[in-house]
Amino acid sequence: MSQSEPTSAAPAGPIRPGPGGALRPLLAADIRGGFWHRRRDINGRVGIPQGPQLLESAGNLHNLRLAAHTVEGTYRGDLPFVDSDVYKWLEAAAWQLGRAAPSDGSGPAEDAGLTADVQRIIALVADAQQPDGYLNTWFQVTKDGRRYEDLRWGHELYCAGHLIQAAVAHHRATGGKELLDVAVRFADHIESVFGRDKRIDGFDGHPEVETALVELYRETGERRYLDLAAYFVDRHGHGLLGGEAYCQDRTPLRVQDNVEGHAVRQLYLLAGAADVAAETGDAELLAACERLWTAMVATKTHITGGLGAHHDEEDFGDPYELPNERAYCETCAAVASVHFSWRMALLTGDARYSDLIERTLFNGFLAGVSLDGERWLYVNPLQVRDGHTDTGGDQSARRTRWFRCACCPPNVMRLLAGLEHYIASTSTDGLQIHQYATGRYTGDLAGDALVVSVHTDFPWSGTVRLSVEDCPTDRPWTLSLRIPQWSTDHRVEVKGRELVPTAADAGWLRLAGPWTPGDEITLELAITPRLVAADARVDAVRGCVAIERGPLVYCLEGVDNPGGLDDVVIDAGRPLVEESRSELLGGVVTVTASGSRRTRPAGGWWPYRELADSDRGSVRRAGSADTAAALTAVPYYAWANRQDGPMRVWIPTS
Amino acid sequence: MSQSEPTSAAPAGPIRPGPGGALRPLLAADIRGGFWHRRRDINGRVGIPQGPQLLESAGNLHNLRLAAHTVEGTYRGDLPFVDSDVYKWLEAAAWQLGRAAPSDGSGPAEDAGLTADVQRIIALVADAQQPDGYLNTWFQVTKDGRRYEDLRWGHELYCAGHLIQAAVAHHRATGGKELLDVAVRFADHIESVFGRDKRIDGFDGHPEVETALVELYRETGERRYLDLAAYFVDRHGHGLLGGEAYCQDRTPLRVQDNVEGHAVRQLYLLAGAADVAAETGDAELLAACERLWTAMVATKTHITGGLGAHHDEEDFGDPYELPNERAYCETCAAVASVHFSWRMALLTGDARYSDLIERTLFNGFLAGVSLDGERWLYVNPLQVRDGHTDTGGDQSARRTRWFRCACCPPNVMRLLAGLEHYIASTSTDGLQIHQYATGRYTGDLAGDALVVSVHTDFPWSGTVRLSVEDCPTDRPWTLSLRIPQWSTDHRVEVKGRELVPTAADAGWLRLAGPWTPGDEITLELAITPRLVAADARVDAVRGCVAIERGPLVYCLEGVDNPGGLDDVVIDAGRPLVEESRSELLGGVVTVTASGSRRTRPAGGWWPYRELADSDRGSVRRAGSADTAAALTAVPYYAWANRQDGPMRVWIPTS
Repeated sequence: MSQSEPTSAAPAGPIRPGPGGALRPLLAADIRGGFWHRRRDINGRVGIPQGPQLLESAGNLHNLRLAAHTVEGTYRGDLPFVDSDVYKWLEAAAWQLGRAAPSDGSGPAEDAGLTADVQRIIALVADAQQPDGYLNTWFQVTKDGRRYEDLRWGHELYCAGHLIQAAVAHHRATGGKELLDVAVRFADHIESVFGRDKRIDGFDGHPEVETALVELYRETGERRYLDLAAYFVDRHGHGLLGGEAYCQDRTPLRVQDNVEGHAVRQLYLLAGAADVAAETGDAELLAACERLWTAMVATKTHITGGLGAHHDEEDFGDPYELPNERAYCETCAAVASVHFSWRMALLTGDARYSDLIERTLFNGFLAGVSLDGERWLYVNPLQVRDGHTDTGGDQSARRTRWFRCACCPPNVMRLLAGLEHYIASTSTDGLQIHQYATGRYTGDLAGDALVVSVHTDFPWSGTVRLSVEDCPTDRPWTLSLRIPQWSTDHRVEVKGRELVPTAADAGWLRLAGPWTPGDEITLELAITPRLVAADARVDAVRGCVAIERGPLVYCLEGVDNPGGLDDVVIDAGRPLVEESRSELLGGVVTVTASGSRRTRPAGGWWPYRELADSDRGSVRRAGSADTAAALTAVPYYAWANRQDGPMRVWIPTS
Repeated sequence: MSQSEPTSAAPAGPIRPGPGGALRPLLAADIRGGFWHRRRDINGRVGIPQGPQLLESAGNLHNLRLAAHTVEGTYRGDLPFVDSDVYKWLEAAAWQLGRAAPSDGSGPAEDAGLTADVQRIIALVADAQQPDGYLNTWFQVTKDGRRYEDLRWGHELYCAGHLIQAAVAHHRATGGKELLDVAVRFADHIESVFGRDKRIDGFDGHPEVETALVELYRETGERRYLDLAAYFVDRHGHGLLGGEAYCQDRTPLRVQDNVEGHAVRQLYLLAGAADVAAETGDAELLAACERLWTAMVATKTHITGGLGAHHDEEDFGDPYELPNERAYCETCAAVASVHFSWRMALLTGDARYSDLIERTLFNGFLAGVSLDGERWLYVNPLQVRDGHTDTGGDQSARRTRWFRCACCPPNVMRLLAGLEHYIASTSTDGLQIHQYATGRYTGDLAGDALVVSVHTDFPWSGTVRLSVEDCPTDRPWTLSLRIPQWSTDHRVEVKGRELVPTAADAGWLRLAGPWTPGDEITLELAITPRLVAADARVDAVRGCVAIERGPLVYCLEGVDNPGGLDDVVIDAGRPLVEESRSELLGGVVTVTASGSRRTRPAGGWWPYRELADSDRGSVRRAGSADTAAALTAVPYYAWANRQDGPMRVWIPTS
């Protein structure tokens, strides 16, 4: 991009908040190499292209045709929200098409096959829409068109929300209006039905339409959509749907003191609330979002960024209740967490939101898709036991080709396809790098382009080279680099000279200009393996440590550690040894710790015993019968890609 | 009872195994005072009498009338197994009526009101039965009488099983045949439909009919019922119902290596298998029962005796996966565990089965009913966190008056009402005392009565006084006393003289005769508070201890320990102090430990931190900012009887 390009163009990303926020999305972004490029390349070559066939074989497209009366037959599946799988895939494909034709012509050629698939499926969606704008195949086909009778479980507005998000993405990324027209008709229908003084005073038990309506307002300028979103956000928590936390109906967000209920529902609602606050300047709502994010992270977040402790009702669970084997940590919750946190990052400028995004992307999110892009995890446990009996089904600890409830795979696809939009931001005083990914990032300074390119082998290396490619030279601006929460040591060189001091300011290293095109900056984040302990209230991991390296959480897998993992002990006093293994799991750095494997004397039949005097007041030392064991860990995101077997993130120290 | 009474009379208890077992039920038993008498007294005065009104208000009796066409209306409730609540209540009432008129005339007068209620409800059941013997109100009323179309979830044979058990109990306890006639008609119908070469080759997804059919065989002598039970036991595990562990259909019992799937379903099936093995002498089946019991106890049993780690699907979970907050430990699973273990105790004579029964009765089972007998717990967690959000419903951590799925309350009622049958046994060489409860226990020695009375304040005191009230004096016999698994020290005096040595033989202290009426024995079990640790593979309680005293597991409750329980630490090196508190919780011994409450410095926003050098190789010592705290524990069975709030069994040591 040169300065002659129209830098006032609206950014094409998934979020376009109003003027109230501290930061703004970039004008353009492109990930061009390195870690995330490889994941996105597979997403573009394997993940997204398999969508149409999977949606066909699972029946989603058949159901659209049934609703359009272009085929006859019976409805496929028994879930009311399968349309949303189609919409999330369309959103993913839209971002992918947007990537394929970057404005500077540097990207791959347009993908004609994908474009045709998108057009074909948009046509199916449009055909299925009813004349008054309503669209939900489950209710149209199996419920004689009866609508909005089960807001708690019907998911009609949830599906509408995903339709709207797909439409906005398609419009922003390609300029196409076909899907946007469908979305607008549905939104208008919803707006005609729902409201305090309209036919239905209520909301959908599964939030999603709130954030979507705000984006539709941003895309169309129609204030009605923002008002409707604000109405939906505020109707939660008053018992209109029965008062359950599951439906986000127990407590209004404005007075809620911690996240609760179904994790994805809570997070989508919070993303919508942040969007409303961004547009309306509602300080109370923003404060609620900040309070709930803070409480969630402090008390209900797994070390992987995973959220949701209960399989039952997909619930957040209680504070500090963070089980390992039964960590739910739905892949969709990781996606939703990134959505919510990025809105908060833009609104507040606080680095900690992007710290959580980094942790989530590299761990709890990325574990959701296999390295080959073809198999998925719905839940992301932190431990699989030696004697694990896999139950199969959606919640298996084995990667699965597709799910009965296939919400997660297209959610992963759409976040990966649009990931460049979460890397950096711009503001009135410059450009901020939130995530370290090789690429080219374009912000603006009062109408002039700020273009910074990044080259890095992060997260394997902590060296990040940045160059200023384009910027105004007539006035200073600040390049802000996020210093990750896990970083204990960093150095920075600007134009070949080490900067002293380089202390970060609340997570940001602020490098004030003046800057000239060609200026180079090198950030060195010390990346060495480390052991991490949890807040003592996290009972599930007492006496255990986790291995981390840079932003990556590591885990032990049975395939690397034969003999089982239920009985290993790590020696926390011995050094960790890293090794770069280009042939392993697509290329990873492994970390090996010293430890042992307990050999216990044959015991009685009862697994509890009276504490002996030797137990009191000191840790149990490794017994003479214990056998030394090297414990080799791989990045958590890469687990379950080789063979079934045990896995654990948290390792006992005694 | 004098020697002139007919000691060959069949015992009136819930289990009457054939000649294959090592031990036999008593001829008569009566709990007459002490701990269990008080619990049974409340069960008889409050628990059981409230049944008819609760079954009326919940709709169960209404549904029977609908099936009988004596009223018109719509079915109440949406579960196919509500008939079983009625049958379990009838079984409880039958045992209660049996207690009310002991053969020696020493018990309370017959309860005319209860007798009338039982007759009235039996008449409702009989009226609802269809001419061919089939009886299930859900299918008769809501499914147009279509039968056996959903064996996985229909619960038709499960309900039949509870009907049969109630009928056998009513016949044994009162001599009444009205309900037995209904049960026989239903059993004959089932036998006409199910079988390898009959209309349906299958089984019920929820076992129960297996053990019931064996009892019906014992009661009627009809071998067909035993054969049908054996058939059902062996058809599990072959995929006839889809192959899920949930339905006990993944693996045949004979080759299964650990308990799995729905805990209550597994345990009822095992009780049925043990019954079949007892009658047929099937050594392979008995070996499977022993193997599965051993694996279950070693790897899937909470310290309370509670079973079932997952809320989701009420599943056993993996080996050593024993969470605290989300321990499911359904009250019904505790009942089922006692049923299974008692059958194994009689079959094998091994003391460990009664060790588990003791632990379960005093902890995981008894916690299921409030001290006032009016409120219930469906699930029995081992921890409730400071910030717990109660979801209400059946799985609340608050005691509830009745449940939508009301399986547990009448299960508690029936076990308490018949508890005297699990206290002692007889055999060819004498009498065995399995549990220490004040009462009078009558076994036999080749036709001559052996009558032993017990007086004890167990579990508060470890002193147990036994007297031989009646016995033949012409030949020796052995009085066997179980020395509990938790006992580290005991003494015994026989006829005023201390017996040396008194070492137990595999859990049994064998006191060989000759005995004479009037002989007295005093057993002193050392009961002092102790700290207990778990197998290191139980990750959920690493670095924690539990407080026990005698057979009782203790817990901390918020009401006794203001300031919350998420942050307490116990000093395992300091003595435990016990205090008898007659005014507290119906009279308990409390145990107070020394400890502290952590005060941590204001931390960052992220709850995980890099391990400091000071963490390595040694436990964290109490910080200077920590505040000393006396930690007062009460018996687990008595928790949640005062106010809502946190609770924990396992207490961190650092």
